[in-house]
Order: sequence, then structure tokens, then C-alpha cells
Amino acid sequence: MKFVRFAREGSEGLAIKTGEIYRGILTSSPDYPGNLSQFVGLGREGLAALSSHLGRGQAFEADAIDYLPPFPRPPKIICVGLNYRDHTAESGFDQPEFPTFFGRFSSGLVGHMQPIIEPAGSATLDFEGELAVIIGKRGRHISRTQAHDYIAGYSVFNDGSVREYQFKSPQWMIGKNFDNTGAFGPHFVTADELPAGAKGLGIVTRLNGQVVQSSNTDLLVFNIASVVAHISEAMTLEPGDVIVSGTPAGVGHARSPKLYMKQGDQVEVEIEGVGLLRNDIVREERRLSSAA
Amino acid sequence: MKFVRFAREGSEGLAIKTGEIYRGILTSSPDYPGNLSQFVGLGREGLAALSSHLGRGQAFEADAIDYLPPFPRPPKIICVGLNYRDHTAESGFDQPEFPTFFGRFSSGLVGHMQPIIEPAGSATLDFEGELAVIIGKRGRHISRTQAHDYIAGYSVFNDGSVREYQFKSPQWMIGKNFDNTGAFGPHFVTADELPAGAKGLGIVTRLNGQVVQSSNTDLLVFNIASVVAHISEAMTLEPGDVIVSGTPAGVGHARSPKLYMKQGDQVEVEIEGVGLLRNDIVREERRLSSAA
Repeated sequence: MKFVRFAREGSEGLAIKTGEIYRGILTSSPDYPGNLSQFVGLGREGLAALSSHLGRGQAFEADAIDYLPPFPRPPKIICVGLNYRDHTAESGFDQPEFPTFFGRFSSGLVGHMQPIIEPAGSATLDFEGELAVIIGKRGRHISRTQAHDYIAGYSVFNDGSVREYQFKSPQWMIGKNFDNTGAFGPHFVTADELPAGAKGLGIVTRLNGQVVQSSNTDLLVFNIASVVAHISEAMTLEPGDVIVSGTPAGVGHARSPKLYMKQGDQVEVEIEGVGLLRNDIVREERRLSSAA
Repeated sequence: MKFVRFAREGSEGLAIKTGEIYRGILTSSPDYPGNLSQFVGLGREGLAALSSHLGRGQAFEADAIDYLPPFPRPPKIICVGLNYRDHTAESGFDQPEFPTFFGRFSSGLVGHMQPIIEPAGSATLDFEGELAVIIGKRGRHISRTQAHDYIAGYSVFNDGSVREYQFKSPQWMIGKNFDNTGAFGPHFVTADELPAGAKGLGIVTRLNGQVVQSSNTDLLVFNIASVVAHISEAMTLEPGDVIVSGTPAGVGHARSPKLYMKQGDQVEVEIEGVGLLRNDIVREERRLSSAA
């Protein structure tokens, strides 16, 4: 099942992909069932019921909707850094023996086909194609063998990073949280559509059609089950939490000359079986007003 | 105005402090006005109206309520590291010229008088007394001179840190996000009760009655206006966002011998005019079940 959250004519909607089109329901309809966050914790049966309900809805052509992040306000967005050896090496770090985690906030999310904004204050906006994992069940101290039971599904993420800010201090967080830099979508793909733990999936990032990152989820240093287990050593995972699992080599900041994203560029992240996330880069025209 | 979110006999409530008691309303009452998150963006007038409404409610003695974090689900909790020179020095870092930011998630919050949990997996739980700033107005690219207009009020925070996990990788986030380690409260104190930018306030942390940290908010390297301005270079601040402004010297990890918090300890953070936040330390008995 592939769910999409979208906007059309000022109204939000939720739909299921059926072949090349979507069938779904707008929030303005009395039949609107609620948002994905309300269903993601109900397990496969709850999502199947949602799918059936949406399948009786209106047909929407893919080019007639504006895509939105599938989950607009995840309780947590936990990113894994340094999780492909080739990216750790190009970044000048030793490979840590424990996963490197940092947080993103929902204020920075954009959907498929929405612009990623290059900030006016820094011309160092970089791409990071990543697999996103969506948690479906509350848990703490989850073992690696149980971890897949806690995963509701997957999506595609571009962990857009403003490198200048990322390296202004010992902590990367601010460079990872610029407004409109965390691209997420287009779909929420339920776990049953993919191999357990999303293993063996090709992941490719293209900038203006040129492949800039190409890898496979089998090359994650800490696989998805291990990442879920390690996070849950510390904190309770909740339905709707998002884990962004790390990026392979090829980022623009590690290149010589450096390859940052700028006004007019188009970036795509594609993960086999999960989807294709495309965004145009638009430069912030000027400093936004403080009441933006 | 000092607001408190609390629980009593299984029902949640919101109250205003009037002298030594509280007056407020339980969610079970038809008069319940809604939570603080709904009011914090309405400005001083909105908060004054809320205060008047609560003041006509039921009287609650301070020892008859269970305190809850004033804001249970802030959109963002942004912490500032290395923001007192003496703490930067004791931590072995050079003082960065830009503030060091990292994120906390709401899953780790506890209220005043609720236990802080020392995790079973590590005996390195440390205290960090800090001033918390609550945002009241949406904004981006906020200047230092405008910054105080974006602050709704303040509270006290203990940024409980599991040092072993904090230093397992280059990023501190996981050591800062253990369940039940981020103590927050007791009150949300509106900005008009304090000097602009909460300047000149004594801040003290006590462990079992002994002073372990003692400083003044005047010694912040980046003052509150500067911190608000810098965060908003990157991201939109929203009503209910919380900024945890940094801790002074004296943390247990920097001592010789190290002074970690353990079962049976009591920790207090007190900030002049803002409040006294007290928590007992309880050790996690065993690994919680995965369905905890």
C-alpha cells in the first residue's frame, strides 16, 4: 500500500495509489477518515481498512495534486549520520562503533515537488539521499530480532544540509534544520511491500539528471533493525516517529570542487520500491520578514 | 502570571498560581479552557484572559496536585550547549563563536516532583540546570533587538544527560534524550514577571542539598536575544517552541571524582523569579519491556 498526503484547491487530502492514479478523500468531505498519523499505529489491519476506505473515494491524477510530506508533524525525526562507510570516509570521520544520531524538527519538512529553499544566508546547501523508516508501534528496549515488528513502513528523504552552519559548532543540528530543506515523500509505503528491514534496495541521488550518489541499503553500517534497537536503548519510539537512516558517499561538500545546490537545480532521490522524490531548488529571495 | 499544568485523580488540569495556592480547572470540567499550547501564541492579553478564567476555578493546594511539564509536546526543544564559559572550559571545548545547538524530543520530558530515571544501561546520569525560554510568536530572521517580543515566558529545565551515550559518537543527541531525563517546570512564568531577556537571574543546582552549580544568566555567552536570533537564521520559531539556554560549570562529569546522579538522590534547579524544580532520581529497575 502506498499512501499519499496531498493538497488540492486549498483542501488537504489523503489517498491510496492504485495503478497510476490515486483514489482518496479531501478533509472537506464528511467521509475523510483522518490523517496517516492516526492510522500508523493501528497495524497492518488498520492500514488495510484505511486503504479500502480511500479506494472508494474520488480519483485524482498524479499531476493534479500537490504532494505534502506524508507525516507533517512526526513526534520525533531521528537522523543517522555516518552510516555508510564510504560517506564516513569522505566526511573525514572515523567510523564510530555506535550510530551517530541527531535530530530534525518538522518545521523544516517539504513534500515531493515542493521547492527546497537555498537560504539567502549561505550558499552551501547540500543533498543527502536517504531511506526513511516510519515507526508503527510504541516501544523501548526493542531487540534487533523484534525491531522489524515496530516498523510501519518507509519513505524517501533528502536530508538537505546547510554545510556552513552544520560545521559552525561541534553539533550539526542547526545546519540540518533550515526551513524547507528536509524533503520527505512522495509516499508512505507499508512495510509489507518491501523486504524485511528494507534490505537490498538500490538508492540513487541525481542532481540535474546526473547521478551523484549511488548505493544500496545493504551497505548501511548499522542496518535498520540495529538502528531501531540502539535508539530504543535511550528513548521510547512512538507511532509516527521517523528515522532517517543515513546517506552514502557522493555529497557535494566532499567533492572537489564542491557541488552545492543552487537556484534552478533539480534534485531527485530514488529508492527501489519506495519511490522517487523530486524537488527544485529555489533561492530565498531576501531575508524573510520576521513575521514570515 | 505563573501557570501550572497538573494531574489530579487521573484528570489533567490547568491552573494559575495565586499566592501560595493554585486556582484552576480540570479537563473533565465543561469550563476547561484548553491547554497552554493553545494560548501561548495569543500574546499577553490572551494569557491574561486565561489567567482570569482560571482564577474563577477551583482552589488546589500545592501538595495536592501532581505537576506535569507545562508544555507536554513542544514543536521544538532546542538546547544550547557550551553557553557559559566556565562550563565550556570544564568540558574541554574551545568556546565556539556561534552557539552550539542540539535537539531534545518531548518523549524525554518529566515534570516537577516526577522521578528522573537513571537508565539501567548506564550509571552516568548527570545534571544540567538551565533556564528555559518559551516562544510566543511565529518568526524567522528575528533580529536581536526584536527577539524579546517573541518570548512568551520562561521556566526551569534540568537537561539530564547520560554522558556515556552522549560521547559514544560525534553527536550528543542520544545522550540528551533518554526517557524521563528532561525535567521541565514547575511553572510557565510569563515574560512580564521578569527582566527583559531574563537577565541577571541567579541560577543554582543542588544535589542532595549541596550546591553543585551556581551562576547568573548574565554570564550566558550568547544571551537569550542572541540565541533567538541565531536559531531563526535557520528555522521558523513557533509558539510553544522551547529553548533550553545552557548550563554553567559544575556538572558531575567534569568533576574528579565524577559525580553522577543515582537512585535515592534528589536534584533541584532554582532560578531567581522563575522557580524551583525538584526531582528524585529513581533507577530503572530492569530493562523495560519492549511494549513499555
